[in-house]
This record gives sequence, structure tokens and C-alpha cells, in this order.
Amino acid sequence: MTSPTKYLLDEARMPRAWYNIQADLPVPLPAVLHPGTLQPIGPADLAPLFPMDLILQEVSTEREIEIPQPVREIYRLWRPSPLVRAHRLEKVLQTPAKIFYKYEGVSPAGSHKPNTAVPQAFFSAQAGVKRLTTETGAGQWGSALAFAGSLFDLEVLVFQVRVSYDQKPYRRAVMETYGARCVASPSQETSYGRSVLAARPDHPGSLGIAISEAVEVAAQRDDTKYALGSVLNHVLMHQTVVGLETIEQMQMADAWPDVVVGCTGGGSNFAGIAFPYIGHALRGGQRARIVAVEPAACPSLTRGRYGYDFGDTGHMTPLVKMHTLGSSFTPPPFHAGGLRYHGMAPLVSHLRELGIIEASAYTQTQCFEAGVLFARAEGIVPAPEANHAVKGVIEEALRCRREGRAETILFNLCGHGHFDMAAYQRYFAGDLRDESYSEEELAMALAGLPSVPA
Amino acid sequence: MTSPTKYLLDEARMPRAWYNIQADLPVPLPAVLHPGTLQPIGPADLAPLFPMDLILQEVSTEREIEIPQPVREIYRLWRPSPLVRAHRLEKVLQTPAKIFYKYEGVSPAGSHKPNTAVPQAFFSAQAGVKRLTTETGAGQWGSALAFAGSLFDLEVLVFQVRVSYDQKPYRRAVMETYGARCVASPSQETSYGRSVLAARPDHPGSLGIAISEAVEVAAQRDDTKYALGSVLNHVLMHQTVVGLETIEQMQMADAWPDVVVGCTGGGSNFAGIAFPYIGHALRGGQRARIVAVEPAACPSLTRGRYGYDFGDTGHMTPLVKMHTLGSSFTPPPFHAGGLRYHGMAPLVSHLRELGIIEASAYTQTQCFEAGVLFARAEGIVPAPEANHAVKGVIEEALRCRREGRAETILFNLCGHGHFDMAAYQRYFAGDLRDESYSEEELAMALAGLPSVPA
Repeated sequence: MTSPTKYLLDEARMPRAWYNIQADLPVPLPAVLHPGTLQPIGPADLAPLFPMDLILQEVSTEREIEIPQPVREIYRLWRPSPLVRAHRLEKVLQTPAKIFYKYEGVSPAGSHKPNTAVPQAFFSAQAGVKRLTTETGAGQWGSALAFAGSLFDLEVLVFQVRVSYDQKPYRRAVMETYGARCVASPSQETSYGRSVLAARPDHPGSLGIAISEAVEVAAQRDDTKYALGSVLNHVLMHQTVVGLETIEQMQMADAWPDVVVGCTGGGSNFAGIAFPYIGHALRGGQRARIVAVEPAACPSLTRGRYGYDFGDTGHMTPLVKMHTLGSSFTPPPFHAGGLRYHGMAPLVSHLRELGIIEASAYTQTQCFEAGVLFARAEGIVPAPEANHAVKGVIEEALRCRREGRAETILFNLCGHGHFDMAAYQRYFAGDLRDESYSEEELAMALAGLPSVPA
Repeated sequence: MTSPTKYLLDEARMPRAWYNIQADLPVPLPAVLHPGTLQPIGPADLAPLFPMDLILQEVSTEREIEIPQPVREIYRLWRPSPLVRAHRLEKVLQTPAKIFYKYEGVSPAGSHKPNTAVPQAFFSAQAGVKRLTTETGAGQWGSALAFAGSLFDLEVLVFQVRVSYDQKPYRRAVMETYGARCVASPSQETSYGRSVLAARPDHPGSLGIAISEAVEVAAQRDDTKYALGSVLNHVLMHQTVVGLETIEQMQMADAWPDVVVGCTGGGSNFAGIAFPYIGHALRGGQRARIVAVEPAACPSLTRGRYGYDFGDTGHMTPLVKMHTLGSSFTPPPFHAGGLRYHGMAPLVSHLRELGIIEASAYTQTQCFEAGVLFARAEGIVPAPEANHAVKGVIEEALRCRREGRAETILFNLCGHGHFDMAAYQRYFAGDLRDESYSEEELAMALAGLPSVPA
């Protein structure tokens, strides 16, 4: 092997500011609406839930927002993360394409989630907040926030979806190791949780319900705020540190991507790698195709409706315009728990509507097959979420082979699968099913979208 | 925080050679003996088990042995690994000591083990070997060899201790993801395994038995060799890439350790961080105290005898002089499976006999307590094995506080605990016991050591 495999960025070149794509949007993002009045909300409406610094980031149209020094200091525990040329994967696929991946699994939580957990904890602590609440599915986000909270001496209360709480106890153990308290949702700790349990005592929970519970607790106490791991503008912006580093590292490799691929659940890791490239093109620079890959069993971008919806099941959040399957939609169980959300980040949805990004969907067995191929070629076992990106990349690489094109493909390998080996076991045992939703249920969920006059 | 936290080494400065401490020993290592003749063995005696390049490394007294370019290329996937100043841990402990840790959990297998798995697979592939056999307990070593094997297109057959195979299936899933075959030991695949099962069909297995099975398979076929994850000289030498990097990184921090701490099972991660410092001192350079920390339930260095013993339970290996609890000794169950071995690397044992290193032992609950404190302060959840090093470091740091000494303490954080969260759960639930061996059993095992005339 003659060309280098890994591109490491000198710490001194770690980005000093996040990139805010709102500065470069050709059409501004639709307003966030109050669900009662259907009028646009202002920063003050969000103050019960979030510290003001984060609210201002949420609505900012400044292109660069400085990464505070204490956040950069913690980022340095694992950042800049490596960019790797996937020589062996290229060889296995017999493709003329060049494949690069940015690897976020080197963080203490094993995923990209600490990129936003740390600044969220920092700005909360700065504002005098004592406690953060949040929701988590399989636990990737919950463990990242628990990690960040422990560094800023914040209490962290995590509502974990009941079915994951029971079946996947190891991420919970990580959260507890970091000192967080983890509660199965629906719980007896909130009035919304109690109402759900009253209707169905054995309810398995969902992300939408857990969000409602976390929001309810945060809204009740002045010293408590709510933290979300994806979807919101400021969360996606924090992740742009990934793509900003990547641009510099790709320059070290003398390369610019023809295609950028990321998996999408709420949209944060995808935004992290893609937004800096999209912004570059929007400002007149070189373009790349941008491909979002989502699970076929929860296809908000490919099968959802673009319209106003709630972010949670209990309808406590404002209304945001996004691709949604309906807040009452319950995705069938699959192992990429981080992608099991009914909606999509408003920013990602907006870019899709503007025709700036593409989207595709694959089943979980297709994605596990891709992940195993990647692990054997490149040595890293991807998280089930990341397998969706891997699958998308393999499809692009095979297209390049068919077309004889030496394109450059870049993707975000957003986390390792070390907590998800039970899913790989089921895959090897042939026990993985590609369960789908019923079209009828989807139609009902979409019919229940709130009615908002244009 | 003003002083830097992380010290990254430029890739160009990654070591080009491993350090062989045999070049600097004041007294040479005692000979390895044939168990039948009790005469020293030569390279040819080991040829059925290992490729000749590794055998020559095993007996070499050259100070530097070049790291082949293809191995360096793979090392670059995660090397140079970070050196981190544990500012927050220092603060929590209110110690004037400076604490640094080298973090090996960033490798694809999550531990230091790939440092030797990769060169072992490389030299085997170079020699035309088609298949490697090995043993594993909890699976840290087995997954590292499976990773390395996949990169060089080698079949890998892992004999996993039955009790771990049944109770900790996730590392097995990692091995299978990399394409290795994993068999519960004792197995029906070897005559030794069958003899053990004949005597006790429900035998839970042990590392010593699994080694015997792996050796038996390798000895039978020309295209098959055996790979060991610790104990042997060449394995420890491969790990010195850790300490060599650390010396350069500590220079970036303008620091030299007063104390170097590592956990010891077979001795490989300890050797990796410590041997380059020991060599420096043996060549007349600055000295550091070197402290090995082992589990109180398997205390080969602190309670074992220094004498000739077999490396395995089936007595298929040569006799090596080491600190041993006796090859028939069965350590009680505890969660640091990587430290559950009756013997200690001959090189580490020899240095202990020469008074060059110190040793201490702690119970597993003491070590989990230390690990949780570390995770909350520094953000990384250590593997149960690494918790022993953390415990040793905390004791040194508290001593520094009592004595008012601003010493510099360095340790090897040899792996993350993401596969071991069940153990943390048991710790939080109060279910962890500090089971000990019976003194009677230890005495019997020691009485059974082979008789070798001086």
C-alpha cells in the first residue's frame, strides 16, 4: 500500500467555530409555531426549556459561532477525529471509486453525540442550570449527555424507552457509571407518563413519549433544562465540527468528495458531515451530491409528508415544519434505535425540499450485511445506525464500478457497534427480520397531522 | 484550564522499531526448557507452533526490531494513541501529583491487544500460514486476533473459555463479525478437550485448558500456527510501541514519570508502557518506580512462586521460569478476565526477581470503585482490567497528597469497558463479591510445580 490510510489533523487546526448553515440558506427556514396560537414563537417561549445561549444559536443567522474554550478543551479528548481512506473496502468492492470515512467512534461515548452533549452541558452550566433532562432510545444520546453532565457537575435525568431499558441494559450501565439517573419511560415520574401507563400499564414506550416526559420535568423547575440529541438547529450546528475538520483533512488527501453520505434519524450526524460541504456549494464553491440514508422501516425523508408536526407524542413541543410520519406513528422495532424517530430535522427537511440533498432507504438486513463487509475489510464494527451510511456508500461504489467512474465518496462513520453486538448476533443467527409498518397505520398517522393554514 | 489535556504525536514520529528489553537486561532471562529432557530448547523446537520470524524475535537480544511497513500502515488506523493529562482526576483527588494516562482504547478492538495481533498475523501470513489458533477468556484477545486475521486473509479459530462463551456472548459476536470461528473450550475438537469433557462434561473451562486446545490444533497442521496474546517475549516487545510513543509525548509535556503503573495478567500491557522506561534506566538514564498491579484473587506476582512451570493446563507447552500459582490453579471468577491467568510473563517475573519492578494487588470491588471515580472525572469508562491500574494510580496520588509531593504518575489505560458493562451493573447493584481462592488449593497447585534441578 503506497498512499496513506489515515489523515490526522493537528490539534491547532481544530475548528474554532461551528458552521451555521442558516447563514447560507437560499430560502429561510419556515417559522416554528406555537401549537395553540399557530403564531411564530420567539426566544422567550423556549426559555423554560433551554438556556438562552442555545436558544440564540437556534435562531441565529450568523455564519460562524465560536466554540467556547472549555468546550474545545474537552473536544480535544477525542478531536480532531481521524479521516480514513478505505483502501481495503475499495479493493473488496473492486471499485475505481476512492472511499473516505470520518470516524466518530473514538469519542468516550463511542459516537458523534458528545459533539453536542458537551456544549449543551457547558452552556447550561454557564446559565446556572443544575439539572438536565433528556430522552434516549438504545442509549447513545443518553450516555453522551451523562458523560457531558459529569464533566460540568450537572445532574442528568434520562428517560429511556422502556423496551430498550429492559432489553439493552448496558448503555444504561454506562449512564449510571457517569452518575446519571435513568428511568424507564413511560414512567410514574410525570403526569404524561402516568396517563400513558393508565391507558396501557405494559406500554413499551417510544422516543416521542420519552421526549414528552423529559420536557414536562424540565418545564416544571427553574434549575432544570431539557437537552435534545438531534433535530434542533443548534444541535445540528454543533455537529458541523465533524465536517469542518473533514474538509481540512480531505485537502491533506488532495481530494474533494463527489458524493457525501450520512445516515439520518433525527439528522444530526448527517448534518455534521454534510452541512459544511453544502454551505461551500451554496456560497458558489465546488458542489458534491449529498445523500441521506434512512431505514426503510422509518422512512421520514422518503415516505413522510413535509408539514408542521409536533416533535413528541404528548404534544408539548412547538410545531416545526419537517418531513414526518406523524407524531403518533410507531416505527416497528429494528436495531438502529437512533434512527427510530417519526420526524426529521427541520434543516435537513428544508434542504430536501429545496432539492439540495437526495435521500434513500434500506432495510436493516441489507444494512447489517453492509456493516459486516465493512468490518471485515476495514477492521471497525459500525453501529447499526452507521451501517445505513455504509450501505449507501457501497451502492455508490458499485455504481462507480458499473460506470467506470473514479469518484470520491465520503461518509460519516458516526459510531462503533460495541454496544450493539446482540444485534449482530441475531443477524448471524438469521434471526433478524425486516419488519415494516402497515401502510394503513402510516396513513392514519399522517391524517392526524395538525392542520396549519399556509 | 490552562495547561493542555491531550498530547498527540505526529504520525511521522510513530516508532519505526519495537524495543527489545532483552538487549539491556543485567542478567539474561533463564532458558526455556523442554518438559521431557529439561534441556534448553532452540528455535527449531518452537517451529511447529510459531512462524520463524516470531521465534527469532522471541530469542533476540537486538535492542531494536523494525516494525514492518505493512504493520505500521495498519497501526496508523489508531496509532499514535493519545496521551492525556488527567487534570480532573487530580482535582477530585486533591493531589499535588500530575497524572498522565496513555489511552489504548481507541483501537478497533478497544484495547492494546491489536498492537501484537497485527504483527503476529502479518508475520504468519508472510510465512505462508493459512490459519491461526488461539485462546481467549472474555474475548479481548480473541477479538483483536480476529480483527488482525481479517486484514491478512487468515482463518482464525478461537477457543473461548466455556463460561465466558456462555455468559459474555458479545465479544464472540465481534469475533464472528471479523469472520473468525469461535468454539467453547473444552471442546470436542481436540483430544485434550475431549479428555477434559470425559472427566467432567459440564467443565466451565479455563485459559490454561483453552491454550492446550489451541496448541494441539496448531501442532497438527503445517498451515496452522498458534498465536498468544501475552506472556511471550515477542508479544511484550510488540506492545513497547505504547511506551515508546509515551516517552515522546511526555517530552511534549516536558515531563518524566516518577512512577509508571500498569495492570498485570500475563504482563503485556504493563510491559508495553514500562519496558521502554526500564530500558532507559538500565542504560543509565533517569529512573522511575515501576508498579505492577494485579488482582488479589489471582496474585501471581505477589503470592506466586518464582519457578519453572507450564504455560497451559494440558502441559503441552515448554517450561518457562516465571511467577506462577501453579498450572492447576483455577482463579475464582472475577470480571477482569484478561488477568485470570496462573502465570506471569517470564520477562516481567525476571524484572521482579531483580528488584527492578514493584507489585501490589487489589480486590475487584476496590478496582471498580476506582474505575467509576475515573469515569466520572475523565469521561472514559475503563475495562475491568484497566481498573486495576487506575486503583494503583489513585493510591499513589493519595500518597503524594499525604506526603505533599508533586510527583508525576503515568499509567496505561489499556482498554475501554464498553463490553464489560454487565460487570459495572453488578457493581452498582451491590452484587459484586470479592471471592478468593482457598489457601489450601493454592498450596496444592504450588506443590504440583514440575521439579527442575537448579
